[in-house]
Parts: sequence; structure tokens; C-alpha cells
Amino acid sequence: MSIAAMKEQVLAANLALPHHKLVTFTWGNVSAIDRTQGLVAIKPSGVEYENMTVDDIVVVELESGRVVEGRKKPSSDTRTHLALYRAFEDIGGIVHTHSRHATIWAQAGQDLPAWGTTHADYFYGTIPCTRQMTEAEITYEYEHNTGEVIIETFAQRGLSPAAIPAVLVNSHGPFAWGKDAETAVHNAVVLEEIAYMGIFSRHLSPAIPLMQQPLLDKHFLRKHGPDAWYGQ
Amino acid sequence: MSIAAMKEQVLAANLALPHHKLVTFTWGNVSAIDRTQGLVAIKPSGVEYENMTVDDIVVVELESGRVVEGRKKPSSDTRTHLALYRAFEDIGGIVHTHSRHATIWAQAGQDLPAWGTTHADYFYGTIPCTRQMTEAEITYEYEHNTGEVIIETFAQRGLSPAAIPAVLVNSHGPFAWGKDAETAVHNAVVLEEIAYMGIFSRHLSPAIPLMQQPLLDKHFLRKHGPDAWYGQ
Amino acid sequence: MSIAAMKEQVLAANLALPHHKLVTFTWGNVSAIDRTQGLVAIKPSGVEYENMTVDDIVVVELESGRVVEGRKKPSSDTRTHLALYRAFEDIGGIVHTHSRHATIWAQAGQDLPAWGTTHADYFYGTIPCTRQMTEAEITYEYEHNTGEVIIETFAQRGLSPAAIPAVLVNSHGPFAWGKDAETAVHNAVVLEEIAYMGIFSRHLSPAIPLMQQPLLDKHFLRKHGPDAWYGQ
Amino acid sequence: MSIAAMKEQVLAANLALPHHKLVTFTWGNVSAIDRTQGLVAIKPSGVEYENMTVDDIVVVELESGRVVEGRKKPSSDTRTHLALYRAFEDIGGIVHTHSRHATIWAQAGQDLPAWGTTHADYFYGTIPCTRQMTEAEITYEYEHNTGEVIIETFAQRGLSPAAIPAVLVNSHGPFAWGKDAETAVHNAVVLEEIAYMGIFSRHLSPAIPLMQQPLLDKHFLRKHGPDAWYGQ
Repeated sequence: MSIAAMKEQVLAANLALPHHKLVTFTWGNVSAIDRTQGLVAIKPSGVEYENMTVDDIVVVELESGRVVEGRKKPSSDTRTHLALYRAFEDIGGIVHTHSRHATIWAQAGQDLPAWGTTHADYFYGTIPCTRQMTEAEITYEYEHNTGEVIIETFAQRGLSPAAIPAVLVNSHGPFAWGKDAETAVHNAVVLEEIAYMGIFSRHLSPAIPLMQQPLLDKHFLRKHGPDAWYGQ
Repeated sequence: MSIAAMKEQVLAANLALPHHKLVTFTWGNVSAIDRTQGLVAIKPSGVEYENMTVDDIVVVELESGRVVEGRKKPSSDTRTHLALYRAFEDIGGIVHTHSRHATIWAQAGQDLPAWGTTHADYFYGTIPCTRQMTEAEITYEYEHNTGEVIIETFAQRGLSPAAIPAVLVNSHGPFAWGKDAETAVHNAVVLEEIAYMGIFSRHLSPAIPLMQQPLLDKHFLRKHGPDAWYGQ
Repeated sequence: MSIAAMKEQVLAANLALPHHKLVTFTWGNVSAIDRTQGLVAIKPSGVEYENMTVDDIVVVELESGRVVEGRKKPSSDTRTHLALYRAFEDIGGIVHTHSRHATIWAQAGQDLPAWGTTHADYFYGTIPCTRQMTEAEITYEYEHNTGEVIIETFAQRGLSPAAIPAVLVNSHGPFAWGKDAETAVHNAVVLEEIAYMGIFSRHLSPAIPLMQQPLLDKHFLRKHGPDAWYGQ
Repeated sequence: MSIAAMKEQVLAANLALPHHKLVTFTWGNVSAIDRTQGLVAIKPSGVEYENMTVDDIVVVELESGRVVEGRKKPSSDTRTHLALYRAFEDIGGIVHTHSRHATIWAQAGQDLPAWGTTHADYFYGTIPCTRQMTEAEITYEYEHNTGEVIIETFAQRGLSPAAIPAVLVNSHGPFAWGKDAETAVHNAVVLEEIAYMGIFSRHLSPAIPLMQQPLLDKHFLRKHGPDAWYGQ
């Protein structure tokens, strides 16, 4: 993929955020990676979606974070994206938003359990909420450490980023990812849907159990993995 | 009705789903049946609404499920639709969505009781939630068995599909139906409205009783059955 | 006011219902009265808003309910409107909807107390919910009796229709009114706003007290009555 | 800044209220101040947004409230704005709305605590709810006293209007402010977002603690104060 094509994809994915009502003002950012070149394209910091053009997209090096193309500063969350790309080697796009209902779960510091097939079609189990960050993690290299605490969460719980393509960062909000920027945004939309439904499913049924494992298997595996068959 | 006319109706009914904000992405499908020919027209699997044309609609045989017209794969839920058409002989259209509030009740595993005249104008009593499916039902012929558990629910509770034209499938979401595809979608919209209102009616009044039977009779029977008189 | 002008006002007020998102499908109706002629103009029964024209508006006699102009059947709620016009002699327009949050209070069978200045700017105290109707009231002359139970509620509680221009009909939904059809719709919009806010105000503060009487006085009386001064 | 430019800014900021869905009907007003001339431009009372032009904007003297330009009556809340401008010497714009979720907190009489980074990016701690006003404060110079009770709240709690650019007025609704009218509206939008998320964050986690102070510091101080670095 050329850098120009990657920038176009990242622009389109960023503009999809207000289309799907996932962002207020500039609160969100999408990136994509070209792993052969070791380059990441990402939204600029604090630029409004309605005025954003492909020339605003910033390209940085995966390892160093150094800007190699673009005149604007990259998103303030760039270091989080880079940490995730380095640790989760199969993902191609990342999105961060403050979408209302996913953020509510993050603020409540709670995991979002799998309570139905909408969840199971995209996420193979509970979507984790990270632990609170320490004062040291917040004070020094905060954005990088936000990535580290996500990576730690997946490592400690034995989760696969391919099976659970999203996380809730405690007291903050969601990150989602996928094979490319468009899929990452798709997963962020689904996360927002199931976050909404989860709040009120648990309200109706406070002791709501996890959905059955066979149903989770059936729905996730029809769309993901070697035996997937869903769609055209 | 010609197959061409049935396909046009099914296309229009499918496009009504995003219009009524009942679906995200491709999460929903509508079908219609021509009982004289034993043919069912249904949405293709995983096709986006904004690009869907009448040529995408797939026609299958009621009994065998064999595709007789259309180049795309039919909806993954086709076997559920066929099971319902075979058991519920008076219905002409079926819709499945993951609309937010109906899905919340399905995820909570709870019936939606009749708590007001909005409900009573369309549904003659409680809208049932199915039991959880067994591992065997999920593993083998899952989509067909989804239909079977709906049919079992109506049989065991002595419910008429004409009187209660919708169901909540446990841990999944709603199906609705009607005399044709358009009416099925209409009922799905009403279900979403009363599902929303039900969540917060019970929140305000946790011990909310069923509405009075005479009021349920008055509202349902003015619009349905031999003595209906509502409208022009 | 000519009958033609009254019909135009009633059409505009009916079309304001979907504009303000107070109705789904055809679930709502607005009327206006010309008291000098003893005539009421009202929405036809079961006609879609998007196709409605001034010729669809039906004119009926206040006392008899007899149609004097229009080829369509009047709203099924016409007898409720007529009962209210006869009892509440100063009102000029009436609206009925199933707007979501006002209906939630009606389904919960609860009054909507005054909890803030938004309420106080339009309603001079608690908006009452009627008692449940008896089987006899439902079975015979149901629509007329719906009006009667509203009138009884205002009489028994000593409420003025000018001070409290709305009511919640138990297990059903709201009616609102005003000096004309436009004002009635305006009040229905406000009712829906405060019904929404009331649900979650009480959620945050379960023992929330009534707002202070002096604050209720200040806000209501600046907009209503002989000492009103608000606006241009 | 010329008076003409200030009026244009105030018009644009008022028109931003319906754009951001912060107002119903005419329920909101924005003002701006030119401190060198001691003049405040503000929305007229009870004028609909869709018909508002720059000629409708009213200019009043900061100290006296006397109208010096414009043929309409200024907003009924003008005296509240003037009191705030006199006490909070660094603010340049003020907005008042009845936005749904901020008003819910105000009606519940509760402070809105900082529960996440969305809050921390704009508000450096809990957003206070004022005490109830006394009967005397309501009866005499109510609008001025609304300003006074806000000022008292900030004084008694030792809060800085620059650090906490919003308040919840008990039983009423929110005021927000900023360096200019546009920023005030921006803060009102954020307040509405975090008010929504706060209701349901606390619903999920009834004993939800305040967010960690280092995280609050990190997010607020990257956007505000001498060490701010966020954006282009």
C-alpha cells in the first residue's frame, strides 16, 4: 500500500467517526499501519473533522514516532497507537473515541460482558476494562503507558487482540482495532451499540449471567477464524 | 403476486429498516412469502442497505430452502424465516433486527408485558421471550432451531401469531411478522417503541402491574379481527 | 376565524408533531375549536402525516360530533377532544400523542411533579395522572369517557386547565392543550422534555422534593396570567 | 473588538445552540462582553433561533444593564449574565441552556463529579450545584440573585471560574462560560456530554469514586494554563 493510499484510508476512517455519531468535536482519532515500511498514518491533533483533508494526515515512524510526512502535529494519542501496533502484530488499524456508552463503562471501571449475539458476532467474550494507571505511569510518558496498560491487560488475562478487538481504558474511554482502519471503526460502532444495550440489559436483569458459551462460539466463529462462512 | 413484485416489496421493506433506525450496518433482514408458489424472497447475507437493489433479493423454496433466483447467498437467518412460515400459516412477511431496546429485553431474557395502549394497539398481551437454546440446538442447524424454539414458545403458551406478531429470542434479539413484509416492519417499529417505554415504565414503577384486560381488549380489537373499525 | 383558516392551523399543528419527534406513524392528533360557530377541526383517523393535506382535516360539531366538512373519518379520539372542549371552556386547541417519556409516566400510573424551572415556565404544579378507568367506562363510550376521567381528575384535585395544560391518561399517554392548536403542541413538546428529565432526576435523587413554591410562582407567573412580562 | 463584531459573534454562538441540540424552542441564551467599553451583547428575549438576525442582538451596559443598542428586550437572564461578568473578571462569554442532562443534575440538586478524562479535559474537578435560593432572593431581583448564588458557590468552595467554567443552578439548569462566546458554548456542549455519561456511570457503579487526581491534572493541564501544549 502506498503512503498516499494509506492516508486516504485514514482520512476516510476518521470522517466515519462523526458519521456514526461516535465523536463530539475532535474527540477521536483513527490510524493505520503499513508494516512493510514501518509507518503509521494518523489524524492530526485537535483538527475539526469538517475541515480535515488528506494533507492533514500525519505519517510517523512505528518505532521512533518521528514525523516523516505532514505539517501538523499528530494526535496526542499517537504514542498509545504505536505501543499497540508494536505489541499486537496482526492489527492494521486503531481507533480511539469518547463514544458515550463505551465511555460510561470505562468511567465505571467495569468490563463489558458478552450478553448477546450482537456482542458475539464481533467480540469473543468479555471486553476488558484496564486497571487504573499509577501516578508514575500518568506523570511520565502517559500516552505510551496507556498503551502499555492495555497490553498488560490482554497479557494477564490471556486475551487475543484478534478475538477481542477493543478495550475500555479505565476512567477514560474505548480503543478498538482491526485488520485495517475501516474495520477498526466498524468495531468501535459495534462496541458502542453493545455498551448501550449492556447498561439497560443489566438494569432489567441485575444478575444477568454471561451468554452461553456454545452461542458465543456459534456467532463469533461464523464470522471469524478459519471456519468463517458469513456474508457473500 | 409475481416474483418480481414480491422482490420489490422485500427490497422496500428492507430499506425501511435503516429509515426507521432499526438496524446498524447489515444487522437485519426482511422476507415475504408467496404461498401459492411456495416461494420466499429474502435479503441477501451481509449486503449494505445503501447499495442494495432488487437484483440482490434472493428467492428460495419454502420447503427445501433451495435458491431459485438470485446470484447472492440468502440471509444467514433464512432457515429461521422458513421454519416460521411453515408453522405460522397466516403470516406473509417476517423481519429480524437487533433494534436496541427489543434486544435489551431479549438479552435480559425477559418477556415484555403489556403496559399501555401503544402495546395493546398491536399486540394482544405479553410478548414472549424464548427459553435459552440447548447446546445441541445451537451446534446443529442453529438457524432452523431458532425458528423451532419460537414455534415451541407460541405452542406451549397457547399464543396466536396473529395476536402476538413478535417474539424476543433469548440472548439474541427480536423477530416480528405480519400479513406482508411492510406490516412486519411496522410491527418491528412498534415493538422497539414499547420496548423502550417498558424499560423506563418499570424503572419508575418497579411493581408495575399488567394493564387492565378490558383496556387491552378495547385497543387491540378496534384494529384487529372481525370487529376492527379503526382508520379510514 | 373562518373554517378554512382553522383547518390550515390544525393541519400545521398536526404536521408539527413529527417535526418535534412526538409521534411514530399516525399516533397523534391535534384539533382546534371555533367557539362562536361551535365547530371543531381535527385530524382524520389513521392518515399518514407525510401525505396529509388541508382537505383531509375533518370538521365536526362540538355538541353532536356530527361531521360537517370533510370526506374522511375524524380521529378515533375525537370524542375525547369534544368532552374536553365542553368542560374546559377557555382552551382553543388540544393535542394527543404517545410521545415516549410522557407515555412512560402514564404507563407507570404516576403524576409528574414540578422539579425545575423548565416545568414551572409552563405548568403551575404537578401534572396529574388519571385513575384507571373502570370496565364499564372502557366498554361503553370509551373515547368520551377518557375525556370524562380527565375532567374528573381536574375537578377532584381543584386544578385549572389554564394552569396545568396537560394530563397523563393512565396506561395510555398524554393530552395537552392551550389557547390554540399551536400552543397545545408547544405544551406537548415541553411535557415530553420534562417527562424525560423527570425520569432521570428522580433516578439521581430518589427522594427528590418538589421544587420550592416561590420558584414555581416566579417562573410560571412571568409567562402566564395578568402580570406576565416575558418575551417581546 | 467593535460592537458590530461582538454582535456577530453573539449571534453565531446563539445559533450554535440548536446546532448542538442544547435547546428546545428559545430556551437558551449566549452573551459576550467587551470589557474595554463595558458593554455586553446578548440574545433578545423569547425570539426564535431560526428567525434571529444580528439586528436582534441587544447591547447593554455592564454596570447598569441599560440597553444602548437594539430595539428588542434583552434576554430575561441578562441580570444573571451581568452579575457573573462583574464577579468573574477573566471570562468573555456566557451561555445558559436547559440542556437535558445538565438540567437533570441541576434538578436533582447534585454536583457533577469528575469521573473521566472527558470531564478532565475541560473542567478541573467537580462542577458544583448551587444551594437552593431563599424566598427573598427569588422574590426580589431573582435574575441578579441567580448570579449572586453562583458567585457565592464559587467563593465558598474556593473555585476558580477559569478552572471550572460551568455551574448547575439548583432546580433550574446550567450556565457555562469561557474566554469568548464560542468557548462558552463549547463548554456547554462538553457539560451536556459528561452530564449524560455521569448519570449512567453512577448507575453502573453506584459507589463510583472520583477519578484519580494525577489523571485529572494530566488532562486538564495539557489543555489549560501556562504549560498547555494540546492541539496545533
